[in-house]
Amino acid sequence: MRLRPIVRVCLSTALIPTFKVEDYIVVVIDILRATTSFCVALHRGVTEIRPVPSLRACRSLKRAGYLTAAERGAQKVAGFDFGNSPHDFLYADLEGKKLAFTTTNGTRALWAVRKAKKVVAGAFVNMSVLLKWLRQQAEPTLLVCSGWKGHVNLEDTLFAGAVATELEGDFRVNDDATLIAMSLYQLAEHRKKYYLEHSAHFDRLVELGMQRDVKYSLRRDLHPVLPYYHEGALINLLTVRV
Amino acid sequence: MRLRPIVRVCLSTALIPTFKVEDYIVVVIDILRATTSFCVALHRGVTEIRPVPSLRACRSLKRAGYLTAAERGAQKVAGFDFGNSPHDFLYADLEGKKLAFTTTNGTRALWAVRKAKKVVAGAFVNMSVLLKWLRQQAEPTLLVCSGWKGHVNLEDTLFAGAVATELEGDFRVNDDATLIAMSLYQLAEHRKKYYLEHSAHFDRLVELGMQRDVKYSLRRDLHPVLPYYHEGALINLLTVRV
Repeated sequence: MRLRPIVRVCLSTALIPTFKVEDYIVVVIDILRATTSFCVALHRGVTEIRPVPSLRACRSLKRAGYLTAAERGAQKVAGFDFGNSPHDFLYADLEGKKLAFTTTNGTRALWAVRKAKKVVAGAFVNMSVLLKWLRQQAEPTLLVCSGWKGHVNLEDTLFAGAVATELEGDFRVNDDATLIAMSLYQLAEHRKKYYLEHSAHFDRLVELGMQRDVKYSLRRDLHPVLPYYHEGALINLLTVRV
Repeated sequence: MRLRPIVRVCLSTALIPTFKVEDYIVVVIDILRATTSFCVALHRGVTEIRPVPSLRACRSLKRAGYLTAAERGAQKVAGFDFGNSPHDFLYADLEGKKLAFTTTNGTRALWAVRKAKKVVAGAFVNMSVLLKWLRQQAEPTLLVCSGWKGHVNLEDTLFAGAVATELEGDFRVNDDATLIAMSLYQLAEHRKKYYLEHSAHFDRLVELGMQRDVKYSLRRDLHPVLPYYHEGALINLLTVRV
């Protein structure tokens, strides 16, 4: 009998050094809003998304012909084509374009896990595609929550809990952070409104008039793509074979 | 009207750098078993507990007349008087003695928060005393879970969630890690056995024959003391005024 692979949750980018990422397939999670927007952009026809750490790096890719998306403190930065709202990408002309992307937390998480066996991005909007792929891989899996400036956040933990709950059975669960995320998901399923209204980042986004993004980011399976991190960029694994 | 102070949860020692500890009263939590044992030892008459990072430092305090407690990998280290089991301290002759203590996670947590406004140790066995004191202080409060080698653990998160739940009303809650800990507590109250049986550290302790310590560590208010960190040692704030 084959041993079931393990699924684990890393609750914050600040905790990544406590894991040996080389041993895992890593799913990077930044529900509000980077990984959600990655899915939208790839589904809308972008051929690659290149996450970059700085505005300067983003600018220099603009000169190389990339479209550019830049967010700082949940706001679009002036002089770039897009912020990191999923709505920025929903109706833009993106077919065949390349996109450079810099965000507060999501980019940092991708960089920190670059030595993993494989790295993909997950969000509610591509959840079923992600689950199917993880089951096919059947490898030890680490769900990495981007969090907010190192802090644990509600929406990424909730999604990690949802994924671990769905995978349990095919995968083993035996660490405490994973149980905690699964508990949160179990409670929140019944009290989603309560949790959302109490989320710190939700508050920040609502103050900035972004309720629409939050609602969108919690809808499932709108964008059946799989952002796969390959040679420094995210491509859609469902259309491009590497 | 006076603004209620905030209560926050830090889910792992690895996340301490993401907080400005200087702004908070910090409660260090290491339920299995350091902070539980601190309470037992102080209640049994120890005048100070000096947490030290290494076995070598512990040994040199032995030569200076201290009793010594040393744990590595959940096991008592040979050549010292005690391990870190609460039962080690329950029946020993401790009245008026000084105790040097080195443990895997708890000692590290105390060192990492030494610049906080005030530092105390919390556990289920001194919970009511702790809550009363925190309400009297009415200061911003950070509940620091020691975790297990940087990883988030169930029992410390559960206790932090219990404390935050009790304090809510007198204190404000507005960050996500705190909500997550409170959710866990809410669920676990109804399913304590399930959670305990799934805890990774619980498994480790059961394998080592330490179920008795786990049960003991989850009982409330057995030891009405308040371990207070002062000049590098823990003293009982309820008997000694500083």
